[in-house]
Amino acid sequence: MSKIFVFGHQNPDTDAIGSSYAFAHLARQAYSLDAEVVALGEPNEETRFALDYFGVQAPRVVESAQAEGVNTVILTDHNEFQQSISDISQVTIYGVVDHHRVANFETANPLFMRVEPVGSASSIVYRMFKENNLEVSREIAGLLLSGLISDTLLLKSPTTHTTDHKVAQELAELAGVSLEEYGMNLLKAGTNLASKSEAELIDIDAKTFELNGNAVRVAQVNTVDIKEVLERQEALEGAILEAMAKEGYSDFVLMITDIVNSNSEILALGSNMDKVEKAFNFVLENNHAFLEGAVSRKKQVVPQLTESFGA
Amino acid sequence: MSKIFVFGHQNPDTDAIGSSYAFAHLARQAYSLDAEVVALGEPNEETRFALDYFGVQAPRVVESAQAEGVNTVILTDHNEFQQSISDISQVTIYGVVDHHRVANFETANPLFMRVEPVGSASSIVYRMFKENNLEVSREIAGLLLSGLISDTLLLKSPTTHTTDHKVAQELAELAGVSLEEYGMNLLKAGTNLASKSEAELIDIDAKTFELNGNAVRVAQVNTVDIKEVLERQEALEGAILEAMAKEGYSDFVLMITDIVNSNSEILALGSNMDKVEKAFNFVLENNHAFLEGAVSRKKQVVPQLTESFGA
Repeated sequence: MSKIFVFGHQNPDTDAIGSSYAFAHLARQAYSLDAEVVALGEPNEETRFALDYFGVQAPRVVESAQAEGVNTVILTDHNEFQQSISDISQVTIYGVVDHHRVANFETANPLFMRVEPVGSASSIVYRMFKENNLEVSREIAGLLLSGLISDTLLLKSPTTHTTDHKVAQELAELAGVSLEEYGMNLLKAGTNLASKSEAELIDIDAKTFELNGNAVRVAQVNTVDIKEVLERQEALEGAILEAMAKEGYSDFVLMITDIVNSNSEILALGSNMDKVEKAFNFVLENNHAFLEGAVSRKKQVVPQLTESFGA
Repeated sequence: MSKIFVFGHQNPDTDAIGSSYAFAHLARQAYSLDAEVVALGEPNEETRFALDYFGVQAPRVVESAQAEGVNTVILTDHNEFQQSISDISQVTIYGVVDHHRVANFETANPLFMRVEPVGSASSIVYRMFKENNLEVSREIAGLLLSGLISDTLLLKSPTTHTTDHKVAQELAELAGVSLEEYGMNLLKAGTNLASKSEAELIDIDAKTFELNGNAVRVAQVNTVDIKEVLERQEALEGAILEAMAKEGYSDFVLMITDIVNSNSEILALGSNMDKVEKAFNFVLENNHAFLEGAVSRKKQVVPQLTESFGA
């Protein structure tokens, strides 16, 4: 049987890495597939913390499946082609495990696809381990737990599903950690922004969305102090304008998210700022504005932009 | 909680009706949703046989969700928008249970989606009953079994999944029927073509596919005698040309499927006959050609057309 790559989205976050690592294991054990976990980018600092904590090596980074002699893939934590591997249109998609909206996704043949509106792709993969009566090792539990904590900001995001609380408790037990203590340490590991250049900051966790013909980039950085990030506004705007020019984004929306108080400051540049202001019913002053209670790109930013751009 | 419509595709076949009927029941019992099964068309004769046999009323036919005051829907046995309810783009898609390729499908928000490359949507719904520890009544088992038999031509189609055989055995037992005997009677009920006009014949089980900018209609009729159907070729071609002119199809591909010997004759008209011939590596003579061993539109016709039209 030929090899199958399993991977999360570009600019991988902890849920992308955790869910793909665990699902590749499940695909080998439960489906007898020759599945290898790979990644579409290096792990960020938060993910690195989780990998180090549980003694797991970062998946090797690939850019193309076919260049590695692989023609079949499994996606976790994403489905939109522009967030996937470069040759996604040329390979066979064997399966998808995701918790996002479905869009810009198409296959020629029936596939295996499991999408649930829960807090993380890791939550779904954990459920599948249980359905298949597979043992969840300490490191797999640790990575899945980290994916869930990361995506839900320790179960505080409105994307958290009622079932995620029990999932988190069970995974914390299997991983042998305290949910609250490990969770805060994991999130804080991702807020060490001082050591990063502005170009790096706006690319830590960024996704492109095709909104009514516009390529809108929505990035997010986590912090314990929004002010500290805004002190770098001028340099951030320089990096944003450079990325827009280079990649052809029409707009760039940066969420600067306070993980302690669960709010975000929005810094936005581009040719559709009227639509951005309309989406959030706020007025940008000096290119930024406060979005109270917003921590979720998926639930509190992208749908609002989609509707506003669609009008 | 507001009402949710559950329905299969347009021109419903037995799997569309069976899977939606059973899933609406599951959604009420397991998810406490106010789910109502409806249909996007009247049942065909085969489906009518199954409904009558198990004493189930045909779901009422609706054309629009919003016209009925409904804003949320669950799709079974399809996902492509052009096969769905007329206002599918304007409503919220709560969930999908399907066994087809995914295409022309997009949501603004995360949803529940379960796609498996198995023989029928009914197979998946049955699995979900078991996962939720829900009792499968005789009539629900009967409709799910009928959906599986219909879509796999009594487990003979290459779309049949290894797991479908056990599903069929279990459902037959729950429904209190002999798989082989009930199955043949069900399939034969769908082959009474003499009583139908040619316009009706080409619409019994027909789906439109967007192939590289072309609207390609692929229809299928089941028979125990291909010759008998071909005797009506002239009138069939008249009906096909009329449908193409009215609906704007670029091409019309009719599979005349012999359910006893598992072969199909292809009758095709349209502006891309070179691509149709290339897809199946045959030459149309007098607009038709024999396709040995082909019984599955999904596996043996649509992927081949998709590739040929895409080139």
